[in-house]
Amino acid sequence: MSKHPSTIKTASPVDALRTFLGDDIAALNAEILARMESPVPLINQLAAYIIAAGGKRLRPLLTLAVARALGYEGTDHLKLAASVEFIHTATLLHDDVVDESDQRRGQPSANAMFGNQASVLVGDFLFSRAFQLMVETGSLEVLRILSTASAVIAEGEVMQLASTGNLALTRATYFDVIGAKTAALFAAASEVGAVIAKADPAIIAAVNAYGQSLGIAFQIADDVLDYQGSLETMGKNSGDDFREGKITLPVVMALENASSEERAFWERSLVELKQNDFDFSQALNILKKYNCLDASLEIAREHALAAQRALTVLPASAWRDTLKEIALFAVERST
Amino acid sequence: MSKHPSTIKTASPVDALRTFLGDDIAALNAEILARMESPVPLINQLAAYIIAAGGKRLRPLLTLAVARALGYEGTDHLKLAASVEFIHTATLLHDDVVDESDQRRGQPSANAMFGNQASVLVGDFLFSRAFQLMVETGSLEVLRILSTASAVIAEGEVMQLASTGNLALTRATYFDVIGAKTAALFAAASEVGAVIAKADPAIIAAVNAYGQSLGIAFQIADDVLDYQGSLETMGKNSGDDFREGKITLPVVMALENASSEERAFWERSLVELKQNDFDFSQALNILKKYNCLDASLEIAREHALAAQRALTVLPASAWRDTLKEIALFAVERST
Repeated sequence: MSKHPSTIKTASPVDALRTFLGDDIAALNAEILARMESPVPLINQLAAYIIAAGGKRLRPLLTLAVARALGYEGTDHLKLAASVEFIHTATLLHDDVVDESDQRRGQPSANAMFGNQASVLVGDFLFSRAFQLMVETGSLEVLRILSTASAVIAEGEVMQLASTGNLALTRATYFDVIGAKTAALFAAASEVGAVIAKADPAIIAAVNAYGQSLGIAFQIADDVLDYQGSLETMGKNSGDDFREGKITLPVVMALENASSEERAFWERSLVELKQNDFDFSQALNILKKYNCLDASLEIAREHALAAQRALTVLPASAWRDTLKEIALFAVERST
Repeated sequence: MSKHPSTIKTASPVDALRTFLGDDIAALNAEILARMESPVPLINQLAAYIIAAGGKRLRPLLTLAVARALGYEGTDHLKLAASVEFIHTATLLHDDVVDESDQRRGQPSANAMFGNQASVLVGDFLFSRAFQLMVETGSLEVLRILSTASAVIAEGEVMQLASTGNLALTRATYFDVIGAKTAALFAAASEVGAVIAKADPAIIAAVNAYGQSLGIAFQIADDVLDYQGSLETMGKNSGDDFREGKITLPVVMALENASSEERAFWERSLVELKQNDFDFSQALNILKKYNCLDASLEIAREHALAAQRALTVLPASAWRDTLKEIALFAVERST
């Protein structure tokens, strides 16, 4: 029985990458499961819960793909990829505590299930475990890159916290925040793949730049999705940023154009956090009136193209082509 | 004008160690201040607040003293000591969030001043910065020791969280908890001092054992102080553990002897956390009835003596004698 064409899903470049990586995917899953184990039952339960909840594992895939694209034939890239995923998971656990989120990827968040206290401490555990994994690779350079990225991520999160409800937030500061809280890990995840493959400095710099631009594109798209996505398409709560008073690129743009009446609306809803049931639709109307969502995606697309250009110095290969496609995919998933 | 003898304070062994360390003390303070800096103002404010609030800095002093005791003549021990202090500070920040503490060392806790969100994130920043400092020493062994210790600390904290209000907690589990949450960092702080000094494996193992036993003695004394200390003598809230339902060694002992009436009291006060103004005195009466505080300190003293014995393999020196004295001082401060 042949499938009707409309039911055949075009493979995403992420799926293509998974196919290329073959056995590495199962090996990564096994590494993640083995290394999050602890003699403490609550750690296993919470870690299993959040790791099983899944997500695309885009960051560790970048590490694996860059290493393989550059001819790496060992197995230490698995430790690095698991390490990247643990750092990411630790930041998610702590973010959900900071944001008081009760949903993550369409399911109750770990802090909703296990409490804030366990989320803070298991985040610390996964973070420490990430560094243990890096040590096992014997590469000080990898430790330098990922410890620096971790510090930058924390700085980005604090900047975001400090700028919540700040209607004076500029585009420049917005880009500083997402460059730190999101893009730094994409950049480091890509870079350590090249470092472990003993690539030339020019190549290492190129994949770092790729990850940084990809991360920016990814986060802008995420911020757009928070206004126009649905729980089904993105597995996250649409409207979270609005409810929490986070000032993201679409809102920055709307504020650049705001009438005094609109400014009063943003003031009440995002600064005073006095929101009624109609306010999210009202916000969406204003964002659409000034074309803020499409304009944000256009900027995301520019960063995706910059990511693609960064890869030009890599030897031509199906790996390279797919990594390039992923940069645009990070934006297109939200259109 | 000569001082009246009673106003002359006998120098503690910690003070003696500070005197021996001379310029290292100012250099450590400078290293800590320089390396907690960030372009993000809120990080600087919160880090400065908690670092200035002080504490004895016993853990980094151990790193410095062990390195010097073993003939180290470089400056990397300062980076390691700062790293140890940052890990400790990060765990304090996260602990206070987990415990919902509003006081720390007799002052409002960082989370009371800056909020839980900032405390979680600045803890993450200091933790990352600790690993950056370790990387700068170029020693993978140091990274291995401190990343492992950090994972063990998190495990200890989660074990403690899971055993809060558990009247069935055994002495063995209590020792597992404090061995992980407290002693692991004392052990690692001492060990990395020996590693950086390129000491023999037997010496490295000995100072690790010293730190582990010292840490156990220190934590038991701390748990006793939580019942018999005052805000003046210890700079911490007496009664915190009781209010939070933490089961510490004195309570484990009291439960081993409890009448059914007393068991009902512990059940109500520590499990159900239904406490009135007289309950803390009542708890203290029961602990004194079974001699639980003195008996706990006696066990602490045994661990302090074990710490002293561990140092026997070190070359005789004033350093070694003072490190030995510190082990007993960790217990005596509470009597």
